[in-house]
Amino acid sequence: MADYKELWKSLDIDLEKHDQLCAVLPEFYGEIYMEQKNRPEGMNYFNFVVSEIHGLRIQELADMKKEGKKVVGTFCVFVPDEIVLAANAASVGLCAGSDFWHPDGEKVVPRNTCPLIKAAAGALVGKTCPYFSSCDMLVGETTCDGKMKLWETFKQYTPMHVIDLPNMKRDQDYAHFKDEIRIFKERMEELTGVEVTAERISDATKLLNRKRKALQRLYNTRKSDNPPISGKDALLITQIAFYDDPERFVQKTEELCDELEARIEKGEGVFSKDTPRILVSGTPMAVPNWKLHHVIETSGAVVVAEETCTGVKYFQNLVDESASTMDEHYENLTQRYMKTNCACFTPNTGRIDDIIRLYKEYSADGVVYYTLPFCTTYAAEFNSVKEALAKENIPVIMIETDYGLEDAGQIKTRLEAFFEMISNK
Amino acid sequence: MADYKELWKSLDIDLEKHDQLCAVLPEFYGEIYMEQKNRPEGMNYFNFVVSEIHGLRIQELADMKKEGKKVVGTFCVFVPDEIVLAANAASVGLCAGSDFWHPDGEKVVPRNTCPLIKAAAGALVGKTCPYFSSCDMLVGETTCDGKMKLWETFKQYTPMHVIDLPNMKRDQDYAHFKDEIRIFKERMEELTGVEVTAERISDATKLLNRKRKALQRLYNTRKSDNPPISGKDALLITQIAFYDDPERFVQKTEELCDELEARIEKGEGVFSKDTPRILVSGTPMAVPNWKLHHVIETSGAVVVAEETCTGVKYFQNLVDESASTMDEHYENLTQRYMKTNCACFTPNTGRIDDIIRLYKEYSADGVVYYTLPFCTTYAAEFNSVKEALAKENIPVIMIETDYGLEDAGQIKTRLEAFFEMISNK
Ligand code: SF4
Ligand code: SF4
Ligand code: SF4
Ligand code: SF4
Repeated sequence: MADYKELWKSLDIDLEKHDQLCAVLPEFYGEIYMEQKNRPEGMNYFNFVVSEIHGLRIQELADMKKEGKKVVGTFCVFVPDEIVLAANAASVGLCAGSDFWHPDGEKVVPRNTCPLIKAAAGALVGKTCPYFSSCDMLVGETTCDGKMKLWETFKQYTPMHVIDLPNMKRDQDYAHFKDEIRIFKERMEELTGVEVTAERISDATKLLNRKRKALQRLYNTRKSDNPPISGKDALLITQIAFYDDPERFVQKTEELCDELEARIEKGEGVFSKDTPRILVSGTPMAVPNWKLHHVIETSGAVVVAEETCTGVKYFQNLVDESASTMDEHYENLTQRYMKTNCACFTPNTGRIDDIIRLYKEYSADGVVYYTLPFCTTYAAEFNSVKEALAKENIPVIMIETDYGLEDAGQIKTRLEAFFEMISNK
Repeated sequence: MADYKELWKSLDIDLEKHDQLCAVLPEFYGEIYMEQKNRPEGMNYFNFVVSEIHGLRIQELADMKKEGKKVVGTFCVFVPDEIVLAANAASVGLCAGSDFWHPDGEKVVPRNTCPLIKAAAGALVGKTCPYFSSCDMLVGETTCDGKMKLWETFKQYTPMHVIDLPNMKRDQDYAHFKDEIRIFKERMEELTGVEVTAERISDATKLLNRKRKALQRLYNTRKSDNPPISGKDALLITQIAFYDDPERFVQKTEELCDELEARIEKGEGVFSKDTPRILVSGTPMAVPNWKLHHVIETSGAVVVAEETCTGVKYFQNLVDESASTMDEHYENLTQRYMKTNCACFTPNTGRIDDIIRLYKEYSADGVVYYTLPFCTTYAAEFNSVKEALAKENIPVIMIETDYGLEDAGQIKTRLEAFFEMISNK
């Protein structure tokens, strides 16, 4: 890796602490990713992205900023990237998937907070994440209680915009979200000085739809009875989609898909054909949170899809590209984004339909319901999901776990028993 | 106490389990309340209400129901009781302040849920609370994540209406809440068959303002340099305000206030004059959650006010009585209710102003910041409250505790140290 010390310094990174993070990640990644068998060649690009995770992309963002472009950090798939891109800004999904950031996070958020929030807080206030430090503005949303309160803290450190997501999905709530998109557009114009025209939104929509389609194509290969890519690798690609350059990401993902489809033709897969197929459903997994997928795929099963925001929720719905006026754009964006079934909404029965549909589409044998500790909404929804799945005869197990590896052995034992049960069905 | 077995049976109460609850409450109340010194005579009425907690008032509600009136249960001070009363229905605040209900609650909500929510869930699904069973409809709100999800579960058991509270307090959010009041009014009309006219809302507003003024008068006596009533007794009265007959409650509270004001004249108080004065701030305390007040007042301090929903938030703001049209009513109700500074809003800086103002108004010596475990919003706000109070030189200590008594000794030790510190200031 090139020497990025000067770059990091210019971003006011706490170099000493940051070094500790850089010291552990390669080994961690090596153990989890590089030791997989039968990996597609096309994963080399994504290996490279990870090896350069705080380097090359940060340099690219710095170069953009030199040219006057702005960088915006987001935390939720409800933030319409179309508006960010149309304002000639870059959007980075701020991942916070390591407990490395927890001690710093606990200085500003309660200990009993979801690991994602605690890590995001730590990454910002501890100045150990160059992505956070590259952002000219962070964009929050009123989804869960923990994040809602996080923005109040963040406001003391950095410019923020908070999108007010409705709590329900009635007509008036659609109208409310539409208005929030308009407000967000104005805020983005203020930040960048770029006029967000209907044409610019059209262009951004087309690009982001291409990204979504590339991911759809990738996930379609996982439907094969002998998946040509591991769940762990697919997860990584979706995670990278949140901050990589969109054009390059599309190109590299399409290239990988060519390879994967050729593999399917040849009947080549990563696991053996009778490996139990798992749909993971629940809370998002931010880089480098690969824990659950790793345990599943080293315990005799394969993850074939994720009903999560670092899975199909990110790309399954396209934005209608036919808009030509601003109002039509706002309407189409509203219709697309409000389709996402997050546990932060009430009621959220659409999510149950999604889980059952994906279970069938990906020919899964069982569902692993994943929640981060202290995520009230996803934990609370488990009861109704469990009931609905029981009616459909779909086996499900709930795993609540944070980023620490202490409980990995115990989870493995529980999952092995679950996989044995579903294999014998 | 009279025999209410038949009444409870008619409400489909689980009699055996309910007996266990009835067996412990009198002793618990006796220890906490009856052993206080210098109690005002006027507390006898409230003692009586507690002794008849599942009896007389339940009988009254049953009698109302026989006459065709409806009973509505609520969980938050944002639900406009004016609309309930104007629809000729009775409103009961559904308290859930005991861990007696937790085992049943944990069957339907995650274990890591705030004790208030878990207890409410248990009281409903376990059929051990005649108040829940008396309700023709429950009214929820989209405040915190846990409650939002609770309503989805409750809908499987009972008719529900959910008021969508906004997350922010901008102009459009006021408009949103105003619309929610209108929707609620329609739902109440549907439930009761009573037309909610402007005149009926006027009458209800006047009655509820009288209740608020009675409580204001009560709390004013606590400002005296030698409070004529303990914090524990004042808390009990506010708790009872949530479900007692409003007219009788006003009368009895006014009578008590006459006595308290006479006491102040004579310089009679409950504690000695130099007792440290505490403002409690934070999450609500539902009957029979008297734990914190009890520990404080048996550890050398007196609670002079509560910046909570079972305290000043319940009554400090009156509704403007000048409305004559429905729209004016909706507007006045919106203006009044949206003044409440709950941690569920973002931002919620008004709460800090409230705490500082109340600290001064009640000549407090320190603040005890109270949170129930897993209440993300109130726990998260502690950081900003602490910072703001530090700037004002106001001592504060945070106590996070649930309903169990196991940690009472430890809390006592911490509080005694805190009281000693503030006495020496
Ligand atoms: S789980 Fe909900 S809050 Fe979290 S990123 Fe997804 S949509 Fe946003
Ligand atoms: S995982 Fe749950 S608690 Fe954590 S940020 Fe997402 S919605 Fe909030
Ligand atoms: S604390 Fe907030 S949610 Fe709870 S009763 Fe008060 S206003 Fe309602
Ligand atoms: S105390 Fe907190 S978590 Fe519990 S119901 Fe109230 S706002 Fe929700």
